[in-house]
Amino acid sequence: MATCKTKLRVCLLQFAAKEGLTETLTHLDEMVSKAVNDHQPDIISLPELFNFSYCTELPILEAMAESISYGATFRRLSTLSKQFSIYIVGGLVERDGDNLYNTAAVYDPNGELIAKHRKVHLSNAHSDVVDIVEVDRFQPGNEITTFEVNGFKCGLAICYDAFLDEFVKIYGREGCDLMIFPVAFHASYGDTYWELIQRARALDNQMFVAAVSPARNEQASYVVYGYSMIVDPLGKVLTKAGISEEIVFHEIDSTAAQKIRTEVPVMSTSRRVDVYKKYSDY
Amino acid sequence: MATCKTKLRVCLLQFAAKEGLTETLTHLDEMVSKAVNDHQPDIISLPELFNFSYCTELPILEAMAESISYGATFRRLSTLSKQFSIYIVGGLVERDGDNLYNTAAVYDPNGELIAKHRKVHLSNAHSDVVDIVEVDRFQPGNEITTFEVNGFKCGLAICYDAFLDEFVKIYGREGCDLMIFPVAFHASYGDTYWELIQRARALDNQMFVAAVSPARNEQASYVVYGYSMIVDPLGKVLTKAGISEEIVFHEIDSTAAQKIRTEVPVMSTSRRVDVYKKYSDY
Repeated sequence: MATCKTKLRVCLLQFAAKEGLTETLTHLDEMVSKAVNDHQPDIISLPELFNFSYCTELPILEAMAESISYGATFRRLSTLSKQFSIYIVGGLVERDGDNLYNTAAVYDPNGELIAKHRKVHLSNAHSDVVDIVEVDRFQPGNEITTFEVNGFKCGLAICYDAFLDEFVKIYGREGCDLMIFPVAFHASYGDTYWELIQRARALDNQMFVAAVSPARNEQASYVVYGYSMIVDPLGKVLTKAGISEEIVFHEIDSTAAQKIRTEVPVMSTSRRVDVYKKYSDY
Repeated sequence: MATCKTKLRVCLLQFAAKEGLTETLTHLDEMVSKAVNDHQPDIISLPELFNFSYCTELPILEAMAESISYGATFRRLSTLSKQFSIYIVGGLVERDGDNLYNTAAVYDPNGELIAKHRKVHLSNAHSDVVDIVEVDRFQPGNEITTFEVNGFKCGLAICYDAFLDEFVKIYGREGCDLMIFPVAFHASYGDTYWELIQRARALDNQMFVAAVSPARNEQASYVVYGYSMIVDPLGKVLTKAGISEEIVFHEIDSTAAQKIRTEVPVMSTSRRVDVYKKYSDY
């Protein structure tokens, strides 16, 4: 468990990408600048694959893919983090050789890339309304991703990763204080899964959860849910966006988290590792 | 995954124990009889330690402890299950030699004991309002507990067991269709934990959850929450009691569960066992 000496000011950008990349990057500059001016955040997060309207069409993914070293959007995130002296998290299609990854990168206040998460659980959902098939588009990541901001241990995972409670539990066991989920939930899954998943991950791991969606565009082929939110370690929603473009802000305070971890020791002395081991399939 | 050929009629008795055991057992007869007459259930569940007002005072636990073979309340559950040709689940203090267990027993329509769960996670919670210390009162169980009713694979665990998502996940992996939690949540923990835990366990494991509390008695030294409920595999509350004595009933239908398990394969092909193994502490 990281020692949390300070409060943390968290901004989520419920971002609406523009038609072209140039316009999108200009809009990114504006929105980050506004978030900094309005809220003086320590950290800002953008959604999953935030620089275009989320889809799983391979030609579009190929066109939007960027090298994490040279790509225009990755570089812009670095520039902005340095310019405003903040941490920035953003999700993009990453190209590495022949492979594409659904990646979220983390830049520190010096503009340095300090972490990147490659989505571990690629979507493969098929309902009456939508097919969300990432499994043959991207290569999966194989790691959890954590980094530290002002004494807060932060975990980073992407969208469908959040559905797998076994996976998020690893972040809890690693002592994360704040879990950041860049996402692009389909609207048809939102009412059932969105708030319940974020609240459950927070309560079960006694950590804050910040989940950031793109703004909804009803004209898009894939309509995202919206409702970016920050949840406290008791599963209470601290702040929540609507469906339009919006900046969500909250200053989180780890005092309550420390107290509940002592009161209800589900992450420490109450665990029965001997029993879990006996029934584990891994 | 058990094959669910039929629907299952589930009754939860949000029971109020009487002052003396004789009166409590008479009341048990009446309430089971009423539940059977009103709803023709396949299975009835009573709460955790249901034959007295839940507490952790050792002299009371000692006084209420019963041999599972000879105890009056255990025997009465057997008699009732045979009399009405139903499955009955009930939680009691079990004495086995020098040890006490917080146990829930399952009787089949022949009155036979077919399963018993000894609470694995003994409460050890300390808040400003209440201390709930079972750890030096009971011996812990070391096993999950499952049984089958009309093609539904049922899991059984008790109260604080439900707080440990890692533990309930085992039941999910074992293919349970319905999880039954006899509980006695303290009222001060109810608003935060009760509904969120039941809904999250249901959604994350794509199974039904039935959680049964005693009726609330505001005069008791330990005030329970109430609100017994049945939740579907999408985390939707199907039916919920208030705080007074009440019979909760719902006929659950596994069709929707089978569909969602295919649509969103979080319990099967989406799991990344290779990754979980790498970070496991067991």
